[in-house]
Amino acid sequence: MTKNIKELIEKMTLEEKASLCSGLNFWQLKGIDSLAISSIMVADGPHGLRKQEQSADHLGIYDSVPATCFPSAAGMGSTWNRSLIEKVGMSLGEECQAENVEVLLGPGVNVKRSPLCGRNFEYFSEDPYLTSEIAVNYIKGVQSQGVGTSLKHFAANNQETRRSSVDTIVDERTLREIYLASFESVVKKAQPWTVMCSYNKVNGEYASENNTLLTDILRDEWGFEGFVVSDWGAVNERVDGLAAGLELEMPSNDGRGDKKIIEAIQNGTLSETILDRAVERLLKIIFMAVENKKENATYDLDAHHQLAREVARESMVLLKNSDRILPLKKDRIMAVIGEFAKNPRYQGGGSSHVNPTKLESIFEEIEKTAPNGTVLYAQGYELKSDKIDENLLNEAKEAAIQADVAILFVGLPDKYESEGYDRQHLHIPDNHRALIEAVAEVQPNVVVVLSNGAPVEMPWLGRVKGLLEGYLGGQALGGAIADLLFGVVSPSGKLAETFPKELRHNPSYLNFPGEGDKVEYKEGIFIGYRYYDAKAIEPLFPFGFGLSYTSFDYSNLSINKGEIADNETVEVTVTVKNTGDLPGKEIVQLYVRDIECTVIRPEKELKGFEKIELQPGEEKDVTFILNKRAFAYYNVNLQDWHVESGLFEILVGKSSAEILLKGSIQVNSTVTIKLPVHRNTTLGDLLSNPILAPKVQEVLAKLNEGSPFSKISEDSDGYEMFQAIKKFIPLRGLAAINPKLTEDILNNLIKQLNEAQEIELDLHDVQK
Amino acid sequence: MTKNIKELIEKMTLEEKASLCSGLNFWQLKGIDSLAISSIMVADGPHGLRKQEQSADHLGIYDSVPATCFPSAAGMGSTWNRSLIEKVGMSLGEECQAENVEVLLGPGVNVKRSPLCGRNFEYFSEDPYLTSEIAVNYIKGVQSQGVGTSLKHFAANNQETRRSSVDTIVDERTLREIYLASFESVVKKAQPWTVMCSYNKVNGEYASENNTLLTDILRDEWGFEGFVVSDWGAVNERVDGLAAGLELEMPSNDGRGDKKIIEAIQNGTLSETILDRAVERLLKIIFMAVENKKENATYDLDAHHQLAREVARESMVLLKNSDRILPLKKDRIMAVIGEFAKNPRYQGGGSSHVNPTKLESIFEEIEKTAPNGTVLYAQGYELKSDKIDENLLNEAKEAAIQADVAILFVGLPDKYESEGYDRQHLHIPDNHRALIEAVAEVQPNVVVVLSNGAPVEMPWLGRVKGLLEGYLGGQALGGAIADLLFGVVSPSGKLAETFPKELRHNPSYLNFPGEGDKVEYKEGIFIGYRYYDAKAIEPLFPFGFGLSYTSFDYSNLSINKGEIADNETVEVTVTVKNTGDLPGKEIVQLYVRDIECTVIRPEKELKGFEKIELQPGEEKDVTFILNKRAFAYYNVNLQDWHVESGLFEILVGKSSAEILLKGSIQVNSTVTIKLPVHRNTTLGDLLSNPILAPKVQEVLAKLNEGSPFSKISEDSDGYEMFQAIKKFIPLRGLAAINPKLTEDILNNLIKQLNEAQEIELDLHDVQK
Repeated sequence: MTKNIKELIEKMTLEEKASLCSGLNFWQLKGIDSLAISSIMVADGPHGLRKQEQSADHLGIYDSVPATCFPSAAGMGSTWNRSLIEKVGMSLGEECQAENVEVLLGPGVNVKRSPLCGRNFEYFSEDPYLTSEIAVNYIKGVQSQGVGTSLKHFAANNQETRRSSVDTIVDERTLREIYLASFESVVKKAQPWTVMCSYNKVNGEYASENNTLLTDILRDEWGFEGFVVSDWGAVNERVDGLAAGLELEMPSNDGRGDKKIIEAIQNGTLSETILDRAVERLLKIIFMAVENKKENATYDLDAHHQLAREVARESMVLLKNSDRILPLKKDRIMAVIGEFAKNPRYQGGGSSHVNPTKLESIFEEIEKTAPNGTVLYAQGYELKSDKIDENLLNEAKEAAIQADVAILFVGLPDKYESEGYDRQHLHIPDNHRALIEAVAEVQPNVVVVLSNGAPVEMPWLGRVKGLLEGYLGGQALGGAIADLLFGVVSPSGKLAETFPKELRHNPSYLNFPGEGDKVEYKEGIFIGYRYYDAKAIEPLFPFGFGLSYTSFDYSNLSINKGEIADNETVEVTVTVKNTGDLPGKEIVQLYVRDIECTVIRPEKELKGFEKIELQPGEEKDVTFILNKRAFAYYNVNLQDWHVESGLFEILVGKSSAEILLKGSIQVNSTVTIKLPVHRNTTLGDLLSNPILAPKVQEVLAKLNEGSPFSKISEDSDGYEMFQAIKKFIPLRGLAAINPKLTEDILNNLIKQLNEAQEIELDLHDVQK
Repeated sequence: MTKNIKELIEKMTLEEKASLCSGLNFWQLKGIDSLAISSIMVADGPHGLRKQEQSADHLGIYDSVPATCFPSAAGMGSTWNRSLIEKVGMSLGEECQAENVEVLLGPGVNVKRSPLCGRNFEYFSEDPYLTSEIAVNYIKGVQSQGVGTSLKHFAANNQETRRSSVDTIVDERTLREIYLASFESVVKKAQPWTVMCSYNKVNGEYASENNTLLTDILRDEWGFEGFVVSDWGAVNERVDGLAAGLELEMPSNDGRGDKKIIEAIQNGTLSETILDRAVERLLKIIFMAVENKKENATYDLDAHHQLAREVARESMVLLKNSDRILPLKKDRIMAVIGEFAKNPRYQGGGSSHVNPTKLESIFEEIEKTAPNGTVLYAQGYELKSDKIDENLLNEAKEAAIQADVAILFVGLPDKYESEGYDRQHLHIPDNHRALIEAVAEVQPNVVVVLSNGAPVEMPWLGRVKGLLEGYLGGQALGGAIADLLFGVVSPSGKLAETFPKELRHNPSYLNFPGEGDKVEYKEGIFIGYRYYDAKAIEPLFPFGFGLSYTSFDYSNLSINKGEIADNETVEVTVTVKNTGDLPGKEIVQLYVRDIECTVIRPEKELKGFEKIELQPGEEKDVTFILNKRAFAYYNVNLQDWHVESGLFEILVGKSSAEILLKGSIQVNSTVTIKLPVHRNTTLGDLLSNPILAPKVQEVLAKLNEGSPFSKISEDSDGYEMFQAIKKFIPLRGLAAINPKLTEDILNNLIKQLNEAQEIELDLHDVQK
């Protein structure tokens, strides 16, 4: 095939080649009939296919063909369930085949920096490892059906405010460890057919024309084999983009961009080999799509709906359950309150907006699941307005008074969060808050079910006994909520993001959404739980947290080695037992902590998780395999991941805040880092370098004869200060107080110390 | 004189000139007898003269001649008393004259970034305004006596860790608003004879050879007229330093640096005019020193000791006074506990270490002040060790049991904080903590008096009724403490820094003391209360907080104008009344808040304060005059301070956390900022620019005909998203969806929009 593509390209005119680098229209690539190159179709929709047949837009405004609407990504992330998400991917792939869509534009793996980001519901987590594990399985699922994916939005696109002009200023280590990390392992493990570049600039250059991102990192380092497509309208200068590694501009540029490419090649500012390379990459995927096309494919609507319900169940997170108010008994009088119960919010606004094949009413599903109960209803608020309506509140209170329990459906209406803009605060609407307060006044048994794509502040939390975070549950949310409320299944989702007590506590708060066209990620690697941990700021609910109707016991942490080299792996095993009365699933989390680091590192980082199902009394061993990356940080000087030799703690628990078992392991680096010696290298650094220390000690001994400091003993006043001064003094400072250390001797010493390391490193290399 | 100096320089040899640019020895500058240039002397000591006669060092190790030891700077900062600090300066000047010291090496005005910095006790505050107000008066005092000062350490030297090799990475706005601001108004208002450059690098260049700092900013912008001296040993490359504006290297370089200067001039890499300039600056100050020399000067030791006591009283801060346990009745049984009571910690370690003219024992002063009381004593702990000594604890408990009240003297022993190294934590020693807990077990009436140079964590705070922050109170601390404990005077100090509940809450925590030789000030302008305010993190004690034995009422906030231009001033007046039964002093604080800012700004910033004394029942009007700087932020594009037109809140209160009166004022900028228009200028920015909006509206009207979005009304789903998309779309994006907006039309439009502003600005200039 590769050879054929090359031959094909040789036959193409410049105009034909340029034409392939942009869309035919909103959703289709161009084809060339004479060369048997088909026009393939792409479509929006990480949580469901959004194929438009008539008027096309990238904003979710016009309708699309019916498709299964799964829970949005925020919910998928909270399932922590790899195989379940792979099934979602397979279903999406089937639907694409049935609708003749060759590439599905998802998943979105941007790491959640601020809960305000309007598009957070489309993203999985604040943690890059969890994000990428979910995305890998999603992509494997879709692509197993012969349909491509588009890993998006690459990169550092973490807000909607000024998304097309904002410049994300982020240091390289943070970029590597957080914002690129969520893409890196997905590319390496799942090879998405395409990657979608984002709208924003990254450190001064548009992502759409960023050679470092699109070529150096994505292709050369990570080995990406597909093509890069622009987010719709993300192209700034088409020629710069092509040169940097952006193969496809979408949507159609009405010939403008194509013309610029042709002119650039004609006037010699762009090499034709760059265009050929792009066309080769495009054709490879186009042909792959065509080869994998299944004629007359169909899919089972009901089965997909059922899967959507299963995913919804696992995506919802039980956050509070005082007095074991949940699960509800089915034969009681229940007041279902809130317009969401009949008019649910089940997905977010914008390009991901799906036209569902059907849509459950929460109210009806509750009635269906508890046929012997009495289910009252009160609207509680009007969805179209934030205004408190006293009549609706009174109706709600009346219903609540008559009932044994009130179930309140509140959260964020559509306009509160959407692609295109960010939230300004974390509040739910006034009339939702007032509803909770009003009902809690008259009914002690209140359960709140939230529909929202991202965290909200909960000043009312103390007034309610039960809280289920429903996220945006997709078209089968009604059944899923009923299943969870009545204990048909036990909740098993856990938060993939921290819920702060106050917005102000969020790490990005002081620098979100930035100033003018610049946003600086000054919190660095400390996002999400990495920040709340390090700063000892108690969140409302921590990352990884979620309750169950049953209970789990953790024991027998075993680590199969006490010491490893950084190129070896280690196996960690724990035993988890269901000690409650109900079957349930548990998400077992493994975090790693670097105890002896000299670089700034988080208190702990998620490096493994498993979701397991256990019957009452059943126990299972859970095994994690950790490799170098579990211990490494990104060393910008080495331009590589690096492990600092030393002890690491292995922490296993139920959430980031509830570590139940601890162990430790010594990890030794196989890389020796040279200490560059110069006039300002400190004595302390020299003395803590095993190669240099003896040589430096020798020099010091000679110098110390007659030094004023030689008289200072451990009992002297100022001993600690002297020790510190000695540790921090640079070589030129040592020379300044030692006439014997002339400029010539100093320069010679520096030379020798640098050479000594070269020699040692050479020997080291030979020994390997 | 200027002319004479120039003539003198013409007569000097290259060698003579170079020789003047470094010290003769540790404390003296070189003189040239043949040219009647005297050798002047400098000496350490912001809170007292440290003149060494024998062995010399910069670490406080060897003895110096006796001099009055005033409270160290942390305490002086908490007096908030301009005139009192000016008196301190005058006394220091007198002592210098008496000891033939021409320049006193202080004050230190580095802003406190982290409470861990080992040298914080030598600095005034976490706020640049308070810092500079105190320093201005200190310098005025010293220099009124014909003695020079050295404003130090310039700049961004906020830690001791790796102080000679660390590179402070700080963005320009933060540098200007925080770290340079504390120097700026001191230079402008007080013209210190010398400025001392710091050890560290600032954004990649050593402070000692930083042309931006030493010449562009210090001299050209701020108008500094004296000479710059290196911190002792801070010179990296002597020639680079001289060229950048470092006139004097200290201490003696044994001819090394001089030789490099001579060689550089001889080989043409340094212009001789640079050297001449340096010599001119040096001679100007040397001659000024000589002219101001008072022969056979003496000073009144007792009067200075008395002043030290007065300053100590105002420097101490009453932080807790439950059940009005303070002031103590003099006729009771009092258990004075803790070795500090007899062996006080009254100053910090390092170059500021003074040999006091006398030293009061706290215990004796308590006995003296309460002659009719019974004063018991227990050592409580051993100062030399951190180990808990059960015998000493038991003794302390016995004393406490016998007494009506226990007064505990605890805090940080010498080795806990010093020049040269930073603290690792904010704990007091284990045996001090254990002492508080043990005594609190047996005695409900516990008063803690802390001796420390910087904040400590206080997990034990709930167990004690009274807490007096004594800082490092100088040689007369004993009397001052007794005066405060018994109510001879009411406490009147307020914190010049935030005390955090936990170290982790400090804004610099994640980036202190940095990584290797780099420390990044990622918290930016959010240091101290600016951070705790914005992040809603409750401190242990807020900035500006301090209790009194009497009470003050605030009323009648009046602002003399409702609206001003940024080049005008406004007067704010409040009435403060002593509503208690005792005379007392109150520190009235004024903060400004920018309500309508588009740039990132703190919640509020200190822009005025007055300390007033009031008899019971007395009231006074306090007036503040605010000018442009009270409302401005540093605009890095303008390279100037800038006020964004809009409403500002004027907040007056007792502390940063206790604002009692609020008013507001409209401030209008007299500077028009041009919006640079380019392909990526957003529609929103264009439409909010008053000059451009009409022109852009016109273009839009033409384009909108037939746009798919023209159909979207306020009731449509996605209306908010459409509005946002429209606001954030860049011009090239508008072109991409509007075939009418061709590349040529777009480029022409951009040109027109830029020109339109030039014209408007020109007209504006003419109108002025």
